[in-house]
Order: sequence, then C-alpha cells, then structure tokens
Amino acid sequence: MVHTGTIRIHSQGFSDIIDITRQVQAIITESGIHAGIASVFVPGSTASVSTIEFEPALVADMQEQLEKFASRTMKSRHSETWGDDNGFSHIRATFMGPGMTAPFSNGHLMLGTWQQIVVIDHDNRPRTREIVVQVVGE
Amino acid sequence: MVHTGTIRIHSQGFSDIIDITRQVQAIITESGIHAGIASVFVPGSTASVSTIEFEPALVADMQEQLEKFASRTMKSRHSETWGDDNGFSHIRATFMGPGMTAPFSNGHLMLGTWQQIVVIDHDNRPRTREIVVQVVGE
Amino acid sequence: MVHTGTIRIHSQGFSDIIDITRQVQAIITESGIHAGIASVFVPGSTASVSTIEFEPALVADMQEQLEKFASRTMKSRHSETWGDDNGFSHIRATFMGPGMTAPFSNGHLMLGTWQQIVVIDHDNRPRTREIVVQVVGE
Repeated sequence: MVHTGTIRIHSQGFSDIIDITRQVQAIITESGIHAGIASVFVPGSTASVSTIEFEPALVADMQEQLEKFASRTMKSRHSETWGDDNGFSHIRATFMGPGMTAPFSNGHLMLGTWQQIVVIDHDNRPRTREIVVQVVGE
Repeated sequence: MVHTGTIRIHSQGFSDIIDITRQVQAIITESGIHAGIASVFVPGSTASVSTIEFEPALVADMQEQLEKFASRTMKSRHSETWGDDNGFSHIRATFMGPGMTAPFSNGHLMLGTWQQIVVIDHDNRPRTREIVVQVVGE
Repeated sequence: MVHTGTIRIHSQGFSDIIDITRQVQAIITESGIHAGIASVFVPGSTASVSTIEFEPALVADMQEQLEKFASRTMKSRHSETWGDDNGFSHIRATFMGPGMTAPFSNGHLMLGTWQQIVVIDHDNRPRTREIVVQVVGE
C-alpha cells in the first residue's frame, strides 16, 4: 500500500530549519498503514531533509556549521553565471541530500525521544515549499 | 510485505564505526521477502548510517575527517546550554543523516564487494543502541 | 510490488557527476507501478547518489567543494596501506552516502523543475558502474 501526503512550509531560507515531525506523523496516521516507511522528500535543489534534536541552541550551531562549510559569501560559478547568488545553497543541499526515510510501526514513527524530522531550506530568500511524504507499507 | 527487525550494538562513541552488514542480511533472510529494500535507521540524534569499505586504515581516516569537519573541541551553544558537551556529535549526525536504504534481490543485499553497512556513533560516550531495519518488498 | 532496474554509467572519476534522471524515470515507466518510491543505490564504496541542478557551472562548484572538503592530495592511511591512492574517494562517498530515494506518483518522479538525480563517482580513475534502481509501490 502507498499513500502520498504533502506538507506546506514557509521558510526564511539561509538554512532555516523547520520541524515537520508532527505533520509526517499525521500523514502516516491518515494513511491507515500500520507498518512501513515514510520517505520524506523535498522537490527542489536548494533544500535538505534530515533529523536533529530540535532546540534553538543546536539549530544555531548547525547553521553556523553550514556557513563554515559553504559560506553564503563563497565564490560560485553558478551564482556568477545565473546571477541568483545561491550557489552556496545548492552546494549545501546536494551534499546533505534531498530526503530521508523513517520507519514506523503500529502507526507510529520510530524516532528517538529527542529526534525530530526537519527540512533545512538553504535558499537565499524566503520560500514556500511542498514537501512530499510517501508512505509505503501494509 | 513489511518486516521489522532490530540490531543491538555497543559503541565507544566519538564516531565509532560498527559493521552491521551481516545482521541486516540476517533480518532480510528471516523476513522471507525476496526482493525489495532494507531501510536502516538509527533512532537518536547523535548517530548515522552509511556504507564504507570496512577496514581499519579507512575507518581511522574517516574518523579523522569527521574530527576535522566538526571537532570534539568545537564551541557549541548546545553544549554550553545543556552541559552535555556533545554539540559536535549532533552536527556530524544531522549532516550525515540518520539512515540509508539498500536494495536486495533473491534475498541478498546488492552491495559492492568491499562495501559494508555501518553505524557511526558520534556521541561523546559509550552507548548501546537499537538500530531499526525495515524490510519492504515482495 | 517491486521492480528492479539497473543503469550502466561510464565516469571519469574524481567526483564526475552524471545525470541519470531519464533512466530512473524509464525504469519506473517500464515497471508499470503507479505510485511509490524509487530507491537509487550505487554498489561500491567510492560513489554517491544525490540531486543537483545539473548545469556545468554548478557541477564545477560542487567538484571544487568536494576537493576543498577532502582533497585528492590528502594524506590517507587507506591509500598508504593499500597503495590505491583513493582514500579521498572513500571519505567523500561515506560522507555523502551511497543512495537516495525519490517519490513518484501517476508514474512520474516528483522532482523539482531544476532538480536532477545524479551519480557522483569519487574514485580516482575512469569506471563503469551499474546503478541499482529498486521501484516499490502499487
């Protein structure tokens, strides 16, 4: 069985980190699927999906690390060629990947206690995005 | 069809790398599922799952790279706020991601000859963990 | 339902980036599966799968970033021990991960407009590789 859900988020970009755990769980619940996997995927090439302990100090640490890894001021052929100044956003996104897959059982996500599913929007401007959650199971 | 298995590991933390390939294969075998995917996921926000050629020299290289990427001595708001000194562990884990998905066919993982599935435990102390393997297929 | 396809690519190594979006879509189409996920996985421990806006300037940026992250000239115990000089390739591959999972609906991949599925071959020589695409759905 397969059930497709979408989650709309609003972000500020620059690796804004948004907790979508509750919405992913709601899509699993509405699917009626008991056990399986939820594949969470962001269409677009400037955002990522991962998990984090979602608390403000760590969110700031993660954003600082991403800035250190590929700075918003880095020189980029992509930015120079297309004039959209978001080469760093693409680099961060391709490195971290566009999605992740979480298991669930008895209708509930099997996450750690302090582990949330998050979208990290690396683009260089506010964005609205539709995240795809594909629930596969029985 | 869906089959859920778990793997218990003991790690030393600090990006200890533990080969779980045999256990993942055993869960596929016990599932009786012929072809599909095995989604390997670590509940918790300070560990990762990936693949590596599991030999000691490369394991040491990988740990050195992670130390260079986000040092155990890095300043971290998370560590300062919560006093658990594992900000670097979270950063490494969120960057690498909490899981990966491997295909199998005829009941066997389709890995390269020198490719093993590993858990990388980034936490700053020894841990026992339960890894979740969700087998989905037919 | 499960359908297994493979994609043969030829790469130059050194993080050569190859667009396989059309071939992944073709495997979904030939599967006859309507909705689900396509798990794209590279057997071998020196390559990765991710998504990118596949245009030459960004491809060059990404390769430069990977060189900055783990240079082809980095010291590596793996290279010294085995004499194959591709420690950097393994480091890049394990960090980025060996696969990714994309959702599809109505028989079509749910990607962004400027988002392509790519193999990144980090090895230090030309390679031919067989990428595995596992299609799971209904």
